Order: sequence, then structure tokens, then C-alpha cells
Amino acid sequence: MPDATITELAKQVAETHKLVLDGQTALNIVWTLITGFMVMFMQAGFALVETGLTRAKNVAHTMGMNFLVYAIGIIGFWAIGFGLQMGGVGALSTFGGDSTLNGEFAIHLGGMEFGLFGTKGFFLTPAVYTAPVAALFLFQMVFMDTTATIPTGAMAERWRFSSFVLFSFAISTIIYPIYANWVWGGGWLSQLGKNFGLGHGHVDFAGSSVVHMVGGVAALVGAKMMGPRIGKYGADGKAKPIPGHNMPMVVLGTFILAFGWFGFNPGSTLAGTDTRIAIVAVNTMLASAAGAFGAYLWTKFRFGTPDLSMLCNGMLAGMVAITAPCAFVTAPASILIGLVAGVLVVVSAMFIETVLKIDDPVGASSVHGVCGAWGILSVGLFADGRYGDGWNGVPGTVRGLLYGDPSQLAASCFGILVNVAWVGAMTFVTLRIVGSLTPNRVSVEEEVGGLDVPEMGIEGYALEGGVE
Amino acid sequence: MPDATITELAKQVAETHKLVLDGQTALNIVWTLITGFMVMFMQAGFALVETGLTRAKNVAHTMGMNFLVYAIGIIGFWAIGFGLQMGGVGALSTFGGDSTLNGEFAIHLGGMEFGLFGTKGFFLTPAVYTAPVAALFLFQMVFMDTTATIPTGAMAERWRFSSFVLFSFAISTIIYPIYANWVWGGGWLSQLGKNFGLGHGHVDFAGSSVVHMVGGVAALVGAKMMGPRIGKYGADGKAKPIPGHNMPMVVLGTFILAFGWFGFNPGSTLAGTDTRIAIVAVNTMLASAAGAFGAYLWTKFRFGTPDLSMLCNGMLAGMVAITAPCAFVTAPASILIGLVAGVLVVVSAMFIETVLKIDDPVGASSVHGVCGAWGILSVGLFADGRYGDGWNGVPGTVRGLLYGDPSQLAASCFGILVNVAWVGAMTFVTLRIVGSLTPNRVSVEEEVGGLDVPEMGIEGYALEGGVE
Amino acid sequence: MPDATITELAKQVAETHKLVLDGQTALNIVWTLITGFMVMFMQAGFALVETGLTRAKNVAHTMGMNFLVYAIGIIGFWAIGFGLQMGGVGALSTFGGDSTLNGEFAIHLGGMEFGLFGTKGFFLTPAVYTAPVAALFLFQMVFMDTTATIPTGAMAERWRFSSFVLFSFAISTIIYPIYANWVWGGGWLSQLGKNFGLGHGHVDFAGSSVVHMVGGVAALVGAKMMGPRIGKYGADGKAKPIPGHNMPMVVLGTFILAFGWFGFNPGSTLAGTDTRIAIVAVNTMLASAAGAFGAYLWTKFRFGTPDLSMLCNGMLAGMVAITAPCAFVTAPASILIGLVAGVLVVVSAMFIETVLKIDDPVGASSVHGVCGAWGILSVGLFADGRYGDGWNGVPGTVRGLLYGDPSQLAASCFGILVNVAWVGAMTFVTLRIVGSLTPNRVSVEEEVGGLDVPEMGIEGYALEGGVE
Repeated sequence: MPDATITELAKQVAETHKLVLDGQTALNIVWTLITGFMVMFMQAGFALVETGLTRAKNVAHTMGMNFLVYAIGIIGFWAIGFGLQMGGVGALSTFGGDSTLNGEFAIHLGGMEFGLFGTKGFFLTPAVYTAPVAALFLFQMVFMDTTATIPTGAMAERWRFSSFVLFSFAISTIIYPIYANWVWGGGWLSQLGKNFGLGHGHVDFAGSSVVHMVGGVAALVGAKMMGPRIGKYGADGKAKPIPGHNMPMVVLGTFILAFGWFGFNPGSTLAGTDTRIAIVAVNTMLASAAGAFGAYLWTKFRFGTPDLSMLCNGMLAGMVAITAPCAFVTAPASILIGLVAGVLVVVSAMFIETVLKIDDPVGASSVHGVCGAWGILSVGLFADGRYGDGWNGVPGTVRGLLYGDPSQLAASCFGILVNVAWVGAMTFVTLRIVGSLTPNRVSVEEEVGGLDVPEMGIEGYALEGGVE
Repeated sequence: MPDATITELAKQVAETHKLVLDGQTALNIVWTLITGFMVMFMQAGFALVETGLTRAKNVAHTMGMNFLVYAIGIIGFWAIGFGLQMGGVGALSTFGGDSTLNGEFAIHLGGMEFGLFGTKGFFLTPAVYTAPVAALFLFQMVFMDTTATIPTGAMAERWRFSSFVLFSFAISTIIYPIYANWVWGGGWLSQLGKNFGLGHGHVDFAGSSVVHMVGGVAALVGAKMMGPRIGKYGADGKAKPIPGHNMPMVVLGTFILAFGWFGFNPGSTLAGTDTRIAIVAVNTMLASAAGAFGAYLWTKFRFGTPDLSMLCNGMLAGMVAITAPCAFVTAPASILIGLVAGVLVVVSAMFIETVLKIDDPVGASSVHGVCGAWGILSVGLFADGRYGDGWNGVPGTVRGLLYGDPSQLAASCFGILVNVAWVGAMTFVTLRIVGSLTPNRVSVEEEVGGLDVPEMGIEGYALEGGVE
Repeated sequence: MPDATITELAKQVAETHKLVLDGQTALNIVWTLITGFMVMFMQAGFALVETGLTRAKNVAHTMGMNFLVYAIGIIGFWAIGFGLQMGGVGALSTFGGDSTLNGEFAIHLGGMEFGLFGTKGFFLTPAVYTAPVAALFLFQMVFMDTTATIPTGAMAERWRFSSFVLFSFAISTIIYPIYANWVWGGGWLSQLGKNFGLGHGHVDFAGSSVVHMVGGVAALVGAKMMGPRIGKYGADGKAKPIPGHNMPMVVLGTFILAFGWFGFNPGSTLAGTDTRIAIVAVNTMLASAAGAFGAYLWTKFRFGTPDLSMLCNGMLAGMVAITAPCAFVTAPASILIGLVAGVLVVVSAMFIETVLKIDDPVGASSVHGVCGAWGILSVGLFADGRYGDGWNGVPGTVRGLLYGDPSQLAASCFGILVNVAWVGAMTFVTLRIVGSLTPNRVSVEEEVGGLDVPEMGIEGYALEGGVE
């Protein structure tokens, strides 16, 4: 009798235990979805910031690029990108998937494996379309889309819409997913620790390099190739300010981005059961504040008055920078990382505009490219050894130079170089190919008259129709 | 001793099991609330899309309708609507409630039951005001409000505010709740399977018919009764474009709606523990993209340039269409459903404007009515039998025509016909009654001069006051 | 053998139980974070409402204050404010923390303890930086920031930016945290029940007094000290309307605030496992609707047409009022509380403008101050004894006057008086000190010409640069 009772009890315990594990999975999927939704909403933030910082005659066009890139990205990433990025085993197994997507294409050299890209999961066919895979797809998709939308700001007010459409397919199917595979999909940059003893390999918690540098490097190369807007540089070669037309849009957009960033960084645990999410969220908040305040102090003491658009870019810069290290650093370090980013973004924007003479209307190269690199370096400097046990298959927690592991900084530097090389080259080649199919830049008449009607078929602001 | 231990252990197991079940309830309430909040935020999206697509002289009025409809809806649904919709047992028991609201009024014919409306839960009195009921109220309320706000777009720029207020009480207390009861509250359309063997009855996961068609049919009938805006049709009867005044508003509004839709569809499980939410979310995302891209391709190849306002409507159309089938279809099917919707919405908008000669300034009839019907048909076509086991009390999963159950398509068609008949008739009657109390339309002077000051007591844009 | 089995089984049960408790903690942190993110987003709502209700020539300045106050608040609260507010044991122990922050400074009189402020947790040093503390910091921080942003509306269009920066540090480090400690951090106002038998002490569920009255009283005193805008009062002393420049901004901002309020009030449980969150959410929704509809009826019947800006303020007023009592009252009471607030805010705004002759451009004093006080009174009137068992260490649930406990109303009144005295005095002193360092008000030339270029270094709207 007792034996039967015990057997029965053991069954109940096993069932209860199973329910608990199911509950963990459910909470993790809920968390991944909700934070993913918040990241998706960042699209609206980008649209507003970029449109506010450019001119009224191009609002429908700038808005249109930021709008359609979301749709293009979804289609490209669904068809090809997700498979290339996550079709290896890496991220899926940590997400609790069943490895059905295990299909990393890798080369083997000297006993070491170098993952290059995934080969499964294309088109989300029914065979792979489980709930965990779907949640992972959604989260990775909105990350990719953040990248895809960044270059639209740097090439705004002159990029032909057809060229933008083609380029955006390239970034969502190839350029982003391949680099993301290397860092997050089990690819070779994540294996730098295992293979060469460089810390835990290239560590990027939420995408300072994967998302922001990819976008920022594409932005810089694209803006360079596109050439400056008509009137940006005088006959003497001096840069002339072309003020954005709507500061409330910029501030609203920045707040939406700051809101979405609380999905971006904390959501990157892919697990609500990992209570580190609270530390990640607060570090993100602290760096955002320090970035904005750093830019306030710098512009105020440098120029006499603060510059509101730079305050906004400072907050974005702080958040870009903390994106890689947010899970690994202390609160005071987060303040410092943000503060540096807030000054760096102002200095970098002026350098790119006046020295490199590249016309990036919204400062995307500085915000996402330069401060993304600073964020990656921050991991190698400030990671304090309290998180990341076993990260990328390397025993122990993640430590930066200041906490005793200089090799982690080396891995950061290497990841930056590879990023610049891959994204720079691919952007150059892609825009050349696209340009041979359709001109990359609108005509002079269209640029002077405004891109809205010729490119988007509609006036951005039709006040006369309303006031009469 | 061991017996005592076993008894003690059994008690612990039971307690732990109870905690696990409480945790499931908590997660489900958290999920229902958060997704409900996201749906509530869609009100802002509707306000922006409708205001952006209409004229500057009416912004306070268009904004004002979209604003106050939320308050009116809450009051009407709290007092009467919720009880009529959910006062039967249907949804509450599946939500884990304790059936205290069991009170469906039904007629019995030939041994079959036909639920007509609920009779309990009015005013949320303390007796019924438990946490699960409150969560259900909030979620159903924001769904209803989506419906209530749709007609304001179709009747914009000429609808008298007092008439709008009265009509909105009617839609939130009667028109919507009754149809919602029939589909979601245990009413007779949900019983078509049990009673007549039509698939699983009328299946609408998140409201292509309940929410969107109700709003879209009311919009079409209302716009027809209201008559076109002054100047919309020339002396020759030809439609003249009246461009919207602010495209950034339209894009921002569309993004807010797309964000909120991730609450709308996945939240409709009312359960975070149902991991199907991830599939629902991704299907919604895929259809939204396909809708926008379909409209892009169609307008580009049809008219030479894309039309940004149609791209936005295309995304909305894709989401409206996927709302009913989102839990039942594959990823590729979601793309197809969205693509068709994106083209359909453009074709339909032109048909309504130029052939039916009904002036619907924002295209609400096409987006919500026509594409809502397409969404319901999609359930009957593409449901693949992977979800919905026991739905509406019918054994087995939900399958559409392509997966072997043509009767499911018949149930879809029947639900559409009933929707058009009920909503069309009720809208007609209600607007007639309201029109006998207060004119439905503003005066010619008010319409020409703009509705803001005479109807809302304020200028929408007071630039002169600021620039001086 | 059975004994070993039982031992093993007992171990499994303990492990499973532990997992369940971990799951509860995780759900509570997820809930606290997500609702905290929603509150953070309210910053955007405040920025839009205040900017929409003021003039176009000052948009960058009004936006700039609402933007930078977020960064200032984070820095000030991180360094000092959080420690002062929560460095006592009160809230942390209920949040499941381990009391490591236990450090309330209190005085003892006649055997009673009177908590004054916390003394631990400054700078979030690694020793205290656990996940629960981080989540609590984030949530409290965004609450404080709501307070800090309220006065910017009342002093808009004339407040010198440097003065604003210094004042905002004062409110985030001292003024708010001290009062918040008294109510939420274990301080003396929370001990009024234990010490003097006044109900459960000063009970404020989500901050009608702590957040809104602190902001509203500071707004009123600040606006009085700042003096009216040039042109607000004629030579005859009569108030002249200065209309806001952009109603769509006001409505969008109000919707964002209403969305965020669903984080504000339900999130204040700090626990997703407390299913009362659903009741809290619905009460908040009902009061928001009643506030807007109350203002609609009042302005329509008083002035002939509704006033859209007052409808928005009415909704905000309803939400401010329900913030304190939201967990303690019935659904019908919530409607009543909101209805009163919707009328009260209109009456109060006119009284302050025409009788007190204080120029508060956005009505912040009325919305947050007056209706905040009404909300606190509502707890003392309508708390129905269904929630709050053991609140503030007093046995039994919270009951107001109408449910048998007049002493609870006395505690509410006392909390209001202390709020007005503390915040009023501190605001006066702080603005005097700040004014001795830098002028509080811009020059006449700057005010007439617009504050954007001289104060923020940028035009808010640069239409000419875009249209050319």
C-alpha cells in the first residue's frame, strides 16, 4: 500500500516538475516576444528621428524608407536570412530548441572548427516552425531590421527608392545574417576563445557590433559612395549646416528608441527566468542618461548653448555603447561608458562632416558605427567577471582588461576589424551591383524639388489642401 | 514514521502543485493584461492614421473623435456591452473563471441551442469583479474599442460630434457585443459546428470578422449615409483626390498599429502558457510585411510610383486579414494571405471610391471590411489542422478547404453574411434614430471652414499664436 | 529501500518547490520591469502634451526640458535619491530583497519610531546591485521622473534651461525621495497607523500624492514664483488665452500617458503573482474614461462646445485621481472618482488662472496637484476592505469612511498637508537658491523671440530650410 502510494506520489512529483519546466519555457517565450515587440516598435523611433533631422520636402521619402524596410526585412529574413544566421546549432540549443535546425556549415583547419553560416530554417517551413523557433525568429528579425534601417538615415534625401529596396534585401538576406552567424549563430568569431584562447571569443551581448556597427559601417560607406547632398559643401569645401525640420519628431523618436532599447538589451537573455535582465535594464538606463548628459555638458561648454539634436544623439550613443557590455559591467561603469559615448558621438559627427567630408544627415555613422565600436571595446575593458559563465563554450565568467583578462579585449578588437572589413566590402560591392541595375541616386531636379512626389507619389505635408 | 513522512510529503506535493497552477494563472493574467495594454495603445495609431489622411482644418475634430471614442467605449462596455457579450459561459470558462457569469440567453429549437446574448456582468458589480473577469473585461474592451473607432475614419471631416457620441454608445453597448457574443461568447455562430456540422462553427481567432468587419461594415454604411465630402466628386461625377495633410502621422500611426497588433493577435490566446503565441506573432508579422510589399509592388507597377499611403494601408490590410487565421496557418500561407490583402485593399479602395461613389477618406471600409472578410475566408481555406483541438466543442483540429474540410469554409461564408446583415442593418437604423435627435452631418459652413473650432472649441494647429 | 526512495523523493519535492519560488521571483521581476518600461515611455507623453499645449516658438525648449529631465533624473536618483528613498528596509523586504539595504535613519520618540530617510544604496555599488534591487531601482526611478517632469509644464516658455537643470537635480535627489521615503520607504507617514491608529497610515497605492502631488505642488509654487508669461494678463489683469500650437501632439501624448498608466498603477504591486493587478488595471481604465467624459459633459454644457484640450486633461485627471485608490475600490467607485476629477480639473484650472492669477500653461497644478489630492482623499472615502491586508504593518484590510474607518480619511488628509508643506517649502527654497546662482527666467527678448535658438541652439521647426 505505501509502495503504491509512493509510486503514485513520485508520478505526481514528476508531473508537477514537468509543469514547472513548461512554465519556465512559457515565461521565456512571453519575455522574448514582448521584448521583441518593443524592439519592433523602434522602427517608429528611427523613422521619426531620421525624418525630423532631415528636410520637410523629403518627409514622405524618409518615412517611406523607414517604413518599407521593415516589410522588406521580414520577407528577406524569413526567406533566407534567418536560415543563414541561425540555421546552425548555436543559439537554438541555448534557447531550449531541439536542435532540429542544426546545420552550421563550417570548415575545419588544424583540428579547429570555423563556422561560416547556417543551412537550415529557410522559409520557416512547417517542419521547423515550432514555438521556440518562431519566438527566436521574431526576436532576431527585429534586431536585423534595426540594422537595415540605419543606413537609410545616412543616405537620406538623395537615395533612389528602387536602389534602397534592392540594397535592403541584400542587407537582410546576406550582409547582416552572415556576421550575426559568426557572433551569435555559432560561427567562427564566437569560437575565437575555444580556438585561440582569446577570452570567451567575440562577446557582444545585445549587438553593439552585430546590430549597430553593421548598420553604422554600411551607413558610412553608403554615404561616402552616395556623395553629399546638393548644397552641403560650399565652393570653398566648407560644410554648411542643413538643419532638420522638426525637433519634436526627433525627441519623440529618441524616446521611442529608448523605450524599445529596454526590449533590445534585457530581451537578449531570451529568458525571463534569467534575473540578470534587471541588471541589464538598469545598466542600459544609466548609460542612456550619461550619454545625453555628456552631450549636454560637451555642447554647452564647447558651443555656449546645448544642442538638442546632439542631446538626442548622445542618448542614442550611450545606448549603442552599452548594448554589448550591458550584462557584464557595474552600474558606475555603465555611467562611464555612456558618458564617453555622449562626447564621442559629437566629436565623431564633426570629424566625419568636416574632415572626412562625408555627408551623413542624421549622424548614423557616429551613433551606431563609432559608438558601437566603443561598446565592444567596453566589454574587453570593463567586464567584471560576474556574468557569462561558460559563454561561447569557454569555462569561467567574462572578464575584461581591468579585471584581469587582456585577451578578451583582443577578441573585441578582432571582432571590430572583421566587422569593418566584411560590412565595408559587402556594402561597396552591393551598392555597385545595385547601381548597375538602377541609379543609386535621384536626379538633381528631384533632389532640389524634393523626393516625395516623384519617389513616393504623395506630398508629405499637404497643408494647402487642408487650410483652404 | 514513514507513513507520517509520506503524508507530510504528499501535502507538500499538493501545495507545490497548487503554487504551480497559481503561477500559470498569474502568467496568463500578466499576458492578457500586457497584450491588452498594447491593443489599447492602438487607439493612438488609429487617431494618427485617420488624422494624417484627412485635412489640417479638421485635425482637432478627427483627433477628438478617436480620443473620446475610447472613453465612450469604456463606459458603454462597462455598463452594458461586456454583459451582453461575455455574460454567457463560453469564454469565461475557457479563461479559467468560475462560471459565475454563466447567463447566456438562448433559444432552443429542434433539440439545438442557439445562444443570443449574455445577461450577467453588467456594471462589473463587486459580486463578479474577480481578477480573471477584470482581465477578460480589459482585453475585450480594447477589442471593442478598435471596432468603435473604425467608422470615425470613414465619416471623418463631416460627422457632427454629438451624433458621433450617440452612435458610439450604440456600437459599444449593442452592435459589437451582440455579434461578439455570437462568435466568442458562446452564441449561435460558434455553435454552427455542433448544431449543423459546419466545421468548428464560425472560427475567428482574433477578430477579422468580430472586430474588423463589424467596424468596416459600419464604416461603409455610415459613409454611404453621410454622403461624400463637399468637393469630393466633380460636376461630372468623377472622384477628385483630397490628399491627407501629414504623412509622418500616417506612418507613425501605422507602426503603432503594427506594434499593437502583436498584442491583438497573440494576446487572443488569453494565455501566456499557450506557446502557440509565438507562431501567432510570427504569422502576424509575415502577413503585415507581405501586405505592405504587395501594395508597394501593385502601386509601383500600376501607377509608376509607389503610393506611401497605400503602403500603409497595405500593411494594415495584411494584419486585418491574418487576424482570423493567425493561429491556424503556416508561415508561407501567412505571406500569401498578406500579399492578397495588400493588393485587394488598393483595388477595393478604388472600387468604392470610383464605382460605388462612396467617400471613405481613410479607406476604412476596404482595410477592415473587405480584408476582414478575406481573413475569415482564409481560415476556411488555409487552416492546416495543427491547432484548435476541440474548438467550439467540436472534436479534432481546425482544417480548411485545402486541408480537407470544405464545411469550415461554409461556416466562414455564413459568418460573413450574418455580419454584413446584422451590422449593416443596425448601423442604418442607429444612424437614422440618432439623426432624428441631432443632425448627423455638420453644416456646409462648418465643413468648408473646418470643424475644429465649431465642434471642438479649439484650433488644431495654432501656428500664428506661436510664431508671433 | 523505500526510505531511500522517500528521501530521494523529498529532495525532488524540495528542488521542485525551489524552482517554483524562483519562477515567482522571475515573473515578479519581469512584471516590474515591463511595467517600469511603460512608465518610462510616459516621458514621451509628457513631452508631447506640454509641447502641444505651448507655442511653436518654444518647441525645442519645452521638448528639451522633458527630454533632459529624464537623464538628469536617472543620474540624480542613481547617485543619491534611491538611497534616500529606499535605503530603509520597508519596500525592499516586501519586494523579496534580502534586507541588505536596511538602513532607515529614524528618530525615536515616546517609544515610537519615525523613519526619516534611507542611508544605503547610493550609486548602486556592486555590493547592493542584485537583480531585485535593480528592478526596484528602475521602477522607482521612472516614478520619480514622472514627478520631475511635471513642473516643466507649469514653468514652460520662460524657464531658463540652466535653472531647470539645477532644480531637476534637487527634485530627483532630495525633494521627491524624502517624501517617497515617508510613504513608501518605511518612513513616518507610513507609520501613522502603527503609531497613532490612523487607519493603515498614509496609504497611496501608486502615487497620487507621492508622484503627482509632489509634481503638482512644485508646479504651482514654481509657476507662481516664475510669474506669468508676457502677455498672459492684460493691463486690466484679465487672463488672455494663449492657445497651444498642436492638438494632435496633445492627444497623442495623452494616449501615451494612458498607455503608460497601465504600467504605473498595476505595476505598483511589484508582483505579477498578485492577481489584483487586473482589478487595478480596470479601475484605472474606468477612471480615465470617466475623467474624459466628465470633462466633455462639463465643457459642453458650460461653454456650448467641448474643449479638446480639457478632454485630454480630464482623462489625465481621472488617472491621477485613481492612482492612489486603484487597488482598494470597486468599479463603480472608480467611475465616480474619475467623473469628479474630470470636472474638478476644469474648475481648478480656471480658478488658478483667473482667481489666483498664476500662469500654468498646461494646467499641471490642477491635473497633478488638485486631482492628486482628490485621489488621496478617495482612498480615505471609498476603500472597501477587499485589499491591503496588513498594509503598513496594521492588521486587517484598508477601509475608508464609507466602509467604516474614518481614521483612514484622517491619515489621507494628514498626508496631503505634509505634502503641501514639504514640497511647497522645498520648491521655494530651492528655486531661491538656484536663482542666486543663475537667473530662473529667460530675458524678455528671449521670451518674445522664442527660447529655441538662444536656449537649445536649434530651431524647433525649420520649415524654410526644407521647403526651399
